[in-house]
Amino acid sequence: MASSQPPPRPISSTLLLALVPIASWFIVRPFLDPIPSLPALYTSIGFSIFTFMATLYLVPTLGPTFVKAHLSGRDLLKVYATQIPESLGLVCASVYILALTLFIPFAFSDSLTIGSTRTPEGIFVSEFPHSRLSVYLSSLLSLLIATILGFLDDVFDIRWRHKLPIPIIASIPLLMVYYAERGNTHIVVPLPLRFLLGSLLNLGPLYYLYMSLLSTFATNSINILAGINGSEVSQALIIAISVILNDLLYLPWPIGFHLPVHLLGSNAEVEFGGVWSAGMAYGSKELVERHLFSLYFMLPLVAVCSGFMYHNWYPARVFPGDTLCYVTGMAFAVVGIQAHFSKTLLLFFLPQIFNFVLSCPQLFGLVPCPRHRVPRFDADTNLLHPSKAIFLKPPSKLAATVLRILSIFKMVVLTVHPSGVILETTNLTILNFFLVRLGPMNEKRLVQVLMCCQIGGSVLAFSVRYGLAGLVYDGDRR
Amino acid sequence: MASSQPPPRPISSTLLLALVPIASWFIVRPFLDPIPSLPALYTSIGFSIFTFMATLYLVPTLGPTFVKAHLSGRDLLKVYATQIPESLGLVCASVYILALTLFIPFAFSDSLTIGSTRTPEGIFVSEFPHSRLSVYLSSLLSLLIATILGFLDDVFDIRWRHKLPIPIIASIPLLMVYYAERGNTHIVVPLPLRFLLGSLLNLGPLYYLYMSLLSTFATNSINILAGINGSEVSQALIIAISVILNDLLYLPWPIGFHLPVHLLGSNAEVEFGGVWSAGMAYGSKELVERHLFSLYFMLPLVAVCSGFMYHNWYPARVFPGDTLCYVTGMAFAVVGIQAHFSKTLLLFFLPQIFNFVLSCPQLFGLVPCPRHRVPRFDADTNLLHPSKAIFLKPPSKLAATVLRILSIFKMVVLTVHPSGVILETTNLTILNFFLVRLGPMNEKRLVQVLMCCQIGGSVLAFSVRYGLAGLVYDGDRR
Repeated sequence: MASSQPPPRPISSTLLLALVPIASWFIVRPFLDPIPSLPALYTSIGFSIFTFMATLYLVPTLGPTFVKAHLSGRDLLKVYATQIPESLGLVCASVYILALTLFIPFAFSDSLTIGSTRTPEGIFVSEFPHSRLSVYLSSLLSLLIATILGFLDDVFDIRWRHKLPIPIIASIPLLMVYYAERGNTHIVVPLPLRFLLGSLLNLGPLYYLYMSLLSTFATNSINILAGINGSEVSQALIIAISVILNDLLYLPWPIGFHLPVHLLGSNAEVEFGGVWSAGMAYGSKELVERHLFSLYFMLPLVAVCSGFMYHNWYPARVFPGDTLCYVTGMAFAVVGIQAHFSKTLLLFFLPQIFNFVLSCPQLFGLVPCPRHRVPRFDADTNLLHPSKAIFLKPPSKLAATVLRILSIFKMVVLTVHPSGVILETTNLTILNFFLVRLGPMNEKRLVQVLMCCQIGGSVLAFSVRYGLAGLVYDGDRR
Repeated sequence: MASSQPPPRPISSTLLLALVPIASWFIVRPFLDPIPSLPALYTSIGFSIFTFMATLYLVPTLGPTFVKAHLSGRDLLKVYATQIPESLGLVCASVYILALTLFIPFAFSDSLTIGSTRTPEGIFVSEFPHSRLSVYLSSLLSLLIATILGFLDDVFDIRWRHKLPIPIIASIPLLMVYYAERGNTHIVVPLPLRFLLGSLLNLGPLYYLYMSLLSTFATNSINILAGINGSEVSQALIIAISVILNDLLYLPWPIGFHLPVHLLGSNAEVEFGGVWSAGMAYGSKELVERHLFSLYFMLPLVAVCSGFMYHNWYPARVFPGDTLCYVTGMAFAVVGIQAHFSKTLLLFFLPQIFNFVLSCPQLFGLVPCPRHRVPRFDADTNLLHPSKAIFLKPPSKLAATVLRILSIFKMVVLTVHPSGVILETTNLTILNFFLVRLGPMNEKRLVQVLMCCQIGGSVLAFSVRYGLAGLVYDGDRR
């Protein structure tokens, strides 16, 4: 069933042209009367649409340049041997960061952000939100460092054990600015632990450790779930959309909602709507600002990921490289840290956490770990099968026990010698787990299963956050 | 006179070890009583020494990795054909930016920078310099973008006409933050023009154009003066030292000086010294802060350039690539813009300005411009001779006139057909100009001549700035 490489995916110029007036309207709207209550949000949407168009157009255009610069690779899960441009995540990252940079003057010029202070003489003076600008700039710095390091990883092909700490370097600007600004290092203690720790706990230096570990987790968890067409970018896309949905809950909507969260077991009634004094922010300007900050970073990220996914979708015409994983992971860490919803953010990473926990026996050397753990491609049937790790020497008792337990829960399939010694195991990744559970399937179907799992994870995350969380935290949390 | 490639330049581990306690002392000193008046400056010096050591050590260590990743090139002015690692400027840039990032908490925590404001209740409150932090961060962003773009230039080998505008992209964060902070766009008008324009002129959008053009000039002028071992980094080093000397004039020195500037034609008496109320800053805290900002960026730059120069000195063991030119150029533009001494900065670029003006006929297509204009290497004598551009068709009248004038001033040597038509000209660069004037010389000597010229330029710059400038500006300038 040999097939030749498909032609570059066509872009509809009609669609692109149709988007120009829409994007322009969003950018012009804040300058028209009546001025909307969140003008910069309109600008952000306008910028995001242009970002989408730029990614959609630039990725295939620049592909050949990447191939020329030795940045290309064979698609191991295909029958054709053509070189596919690699590291195109660099284009995504550049477009993304450029959009965020050009957005600076807009983010800090609307009526919400420029507060007025009364001087001793009784005059109201506009106060520029310097502190929030510093936070925004440090976030951009971290994203840029993640881009550079991701691209260096692609160019120099760093071993995975060496690249684990790379996101820590990228998080340094975040930490430094947080420290320089004497940022809050207190956390709210869950109700059941308050008798022990009080309601607020100062983590001090541990808080900085937590922040850098969050960057490391967000980045690497997307990176180790790579390997099949569209897997990296689709995860990033769904997580970004989930974060946006969560942010929208905190904005002052001009219309009223009533969420039936009592069905999910929460004691609190959640009702939101009405200008300014509404949303989950309950009138807190601080919370609205934080979630606006998050939206400014997530909207263009969704745009970039959608544009890139069009070309990276099965059968992929371009590969993202590590750059995309680094930048998207860092973007999530940035909003989680700066907008103070890192616990909620982690909930959106449920499939990644599952994948990480499942991978642990291989990551920590209990079970042999081959260089690539992507599923095995069968060229005859065009289907993917679980790939296997072979034991060159019999596994330790601990390893054997772990694998047998995983095998009972149908998370791995073992090849056992008649004597009872384990010879092989399927690799411990979520992708192989899907193949073990649902049987062999083609690559396109596997990425669809992964996306469904990610969406399911987000639905579960929202239930936990707005239902169960009410049980361990009181209502008045930041 | 064939010779084989020299071995990697040895690093004295004794020197490195001896530097550790010195650097550590500078970092620890601000925490000891009595606290020095400019504690962050001590930290900056300490960091710079570590930066020097890191560069000295990392550049040769990482060289082979660069060769493996296809980042290497032949030294065209040598007899051996070994591949020399290219783009090591990336290592310099990374070390430099990492040092500047780690410095963030120190730069904004000393007694000078945290001012106190009296609240209406009469209480003195420490005020965090958020605005200066934003400026610092936007500078880092510009440096990082310059690094990325420089490295992309190395990897993708962008044509020079396409890369001219690249520094404009890198200057966007500077411009955006300047705009968002509603930065000052006024300039002081020279005395002779004041009857026409007033003493202050608001340039408005033109000021932004000026800032981005300054970045473009600083970056490209170092880049087009590349080609012989050590030329890029030695220029950067001398300019950085000149900027530092200029900054030192504005610091509050505990001892008194008296400069004989009246000898240079200035009317003003320049006397400086004495704690706080002294220096050229004449007690202006604003001026001291600006020049401290400049020092924070220039000290580690000198460290990185010195460390790199050791390995890049004739015969070069590593090449800087475009990355080094981009980052150093951007660093100069950043301090010139943010510390508001762009005119003084331009004076330190006199050799580059000369080179640029001389190059114009080739850059703008009047005279043919070969891909490389570096001097021609004669392997037999080991000497460099002026390289030549050949006219495939007779030059235009304008081109012929320009070249003949240049030839009268011995800036070029022409090959003329007996009929009077110009057949060839030496390439219009400062390096070829030196060879035309001083005769063929070896590469090491040529870079020494270039360095002397750069130092001479800086001496002239200081005379103009503190001597002649008094004639066209009054004393009370920022």
